[in-house]
Amino acid sequence: MLRAYLDNNASAPVRAEVAAAMAPFLHENFGNASSVHQRGQAARAALEQARSQVATLIGARPAEIVFTSGGTESDNLAVWGPLADSRPGHVITSAIEHHAVLFPFQELEKRGWRVTWLPVNAQGRIDPGDVRRALTPATALISVMMANNETGVIQPIAPIGTIARAAGVTFHVDAVQAAGKIPIVVEDLNCDLLSLSGHKLHAPQGIGALYLRRGTTLRPMFFGGRHERERRAGTENIPGIVGFGEAARLAAAELESSAERLATLRDRLETRILDAIPEAVVVGAGPRTPNTTNICFAEVDGEALVISLDLQGFCVSAGAACSSGAVDASHVLLAMGLSPARARSCLRFSLGKQNTEAEVAALLEVLPGLVARLRELSPSWRH
Amino acid sequence: MLRAYLDNNASAPVRAEVAAAMAPFLHENFGNASSVHQRGQAARAALEQARSQVATLIGARPAEIVFTSGGTESDNLAVWGPLADSRPGHVITSAIEHHAVLFPFQELEKRGWRVTWLPVNAQGRIDPGDVRRALTPATALISVMMANNETGVIQPIAPIGTIARAAGVTFHVDAVQAAGKIPIVVEDLNCDLLSLSGHKLHAPQGIGALYLRRGTTLRPMFFGGRHERERRAGTENIPGIVGFGEAARLAAAELESSAERLATLRDRLETRILDAIPEAVVVGAGPRTPNTTNICFAEVDGEALVISLDLQGFCVSAGAACSSGAVDASHVLLAMGLSPARARSCLRFSLGKQNTEAEVAALLEVLPGLVARLRELSPSWRH
Repeated sequence: MLRAYLDNNASAPVRAEVAAAMAPFLHENFGNASSVHQRGQAARAALEQARSQVATLIGARPAEIVFTSGGTESDNLAVWGPLADSRPGHVITSAIEHHAVLFPFQELEKRGWRVTWLPVNAQGRIDPGDVRRALTPATALISVMMANNETGVIQPIAPIGTIARAAGVTFHVDAVQAAGKIPIVVEDLNCDLLSLSGHKLHAPQGIGALYLRRGTTLRPMFFGGRHERERRAGTENIPGIVGFGEAARLAAAELESSAERLATLRDRLETRILDAIPEAVVVGAGPRTPNTTNICFAEVDGEALVISLDLQGFCVSAGAACSSGAVDASHVLLAMGLSPARARSCLRFSLGKQNTEAEVAALLEVLPGLVARLRELSPSWRH
Repeated sequence: MLRAYLDNNASAPVRAEVAAAMAPFLHENFGNASSVHQRGQAARAALEQARSQVATLIGARPAEIVFTSGGTESDNLAVWGPLADSRPGHVITSAIEHHAVLFPFQELEKRGWRVTWLPVNAQGRIDPGDVRRALTPATALISVMMANNETGVIQPIAPIGTIARAAGVTFHVDAVQAAGKIPIVVEDLNCDLLSLSGHKLHAPQGIGALYLRRGTTLRPMFFGGRHERERRAGTENIPGIVGFGEAARLAAAELESSAERLATLRDRLETRILDAIPEAVVVGAGPRTPNTTNICFAEVDGEALVISLDLQGFCVSAGAACSSGAVDASHVLLAMGLSPARARSCLRFSLGKQNTEAEVAALLEVLPGLVARLRELSPSWRH
């Protein structure tokens, strides 16, 4: 039985309003948005309304939004697209990016590009000065995430954007975990590309978007029909796009109130855990998304704690979902200076619209006991 | 008001059973299939069941199925993936492929590959002998569609597969318009890669699959999480995948009865049109998918007829949806030897599970009059 789903950074449930908006496009309003007839035109109208809703969430123009199949495709298109016609040069990213940025940059490295991996401090923050110092005349792309998926730590995107713009270097921002949680105004960030994912903000899985600042050109990854202004071929996923549009509209309308409510709930969760459990430490101080906290429980095996909590009906995560089950410690926490053993003792709690105070209270009824039991199993825990 | 949607090759409506199967995964059963906890594992179980259902439809093993965002991604991955690490050589495809294959091959040509564009005869069929004669030691890939989207004409895939296998050349089959309509057994086709799309067989838009014969390797297009055995990164679209699985299960179970019913309905539609309208000619004789017919109405502007029918509540298409509105005549019909003017006079009628005899009867009440009226507007029609 599910008592609390606290893993919304992995995938957040589809909101009832979003499912309701999608329903007609699964049933009577089917149609290919490229078709000339009424069903096609109805799909086209819904597509353009959703494009406008997503654009509004980040202060962009509708024509600057390209719909994709999700955050990973957006990130990959943002990395491959601008570089596809260039000879290997220099690119800059951070050591704490999501794998959808990290691995494309590792691929670039294999193909002869020089990559600067920006470090982070103990709080998980990048120093914009490091970006300035890394720039060379050969630098072709900078990619930095807006908020980290494991810690929620918010990066100094606007200062980095100013540096990138002054140097004339294309700047991509992975905003998958930031969108809908903190305000985003693309003009203020001076970015050229910005990735979004639907299912992180209560839209369905399988839909995402890439913001392309007017004038930014890239080579598409898919060739085919002339969809999305020839930037992304393929019949548009109208139900997913409509759901994404509605989720973006709701997120924009509720941004302030939702952030306040989530931050209060997250802070309560955090405080109560730190009060109830000895040697529990929050990872990543400073500005964070309002819904996320990452807490290390000294001498506890994080994966074992995830499983113990799951048996009690609580869904949380030890690191990013897409590397779950991996034996490696989180590259994000290692970059922040944690030892592998310590990094393996951390849990991510990420809240969503649906979470309540009662759920936090229920978690606190079981978490201290589970941590204590797992510590008893640890040979190095002082008994 | 919609009186009949006869454009199922563009996008077919989601079946009620499919929407019902998806519903729990939009609501209570959300979860990231990579998460360790119960919600993640429930998503994972649903993913693997759907993989098995899709595999069964084409006689494949579940591990040979990679889920994608749709037919265009599958086609692109099938073309780029096997060639990404090769120096330009020689590839073979046909002149009548969907744009999702045609345009990647045009890109290959720009990048130094030599492309053999196989011709078709007046019936729209490829001669397998042409494939054999085109082979060179440098041939790296053959890509031929199983059934054409505009005419429904079925290609001699098994003989081509035998030639490809004997030559040791990777063979891709775009089966987007064939799947669920005619039997597919990948072993019998001797293909290495085969593309599928959900929304062409009454699953939702935004989901597709690529069959990769065991042992076939390719470079992924997306790098990121270790999803789909590292062949396609990105959080899996569980609602879409579950819908695709259910649609594949239904299509497999009903293949014979559905094909028989659709062929009867299509043949009736065709016969009645040819009886009622002078100088109407079916394009593409020989084996066709049971749901498709393409009919030329001499001296009629196809796009005008589409719009006239739409105003009467009938959705049909003049050519592929993704090039709708284009002024160019269909490359498929031109390859079959039709003049541009004649190609522009053709309409595609494509049936789906939901279509009825009453809808065909209703169409026949208005179509002859509309054709006659449009012919009156043609200066070259003998009045």
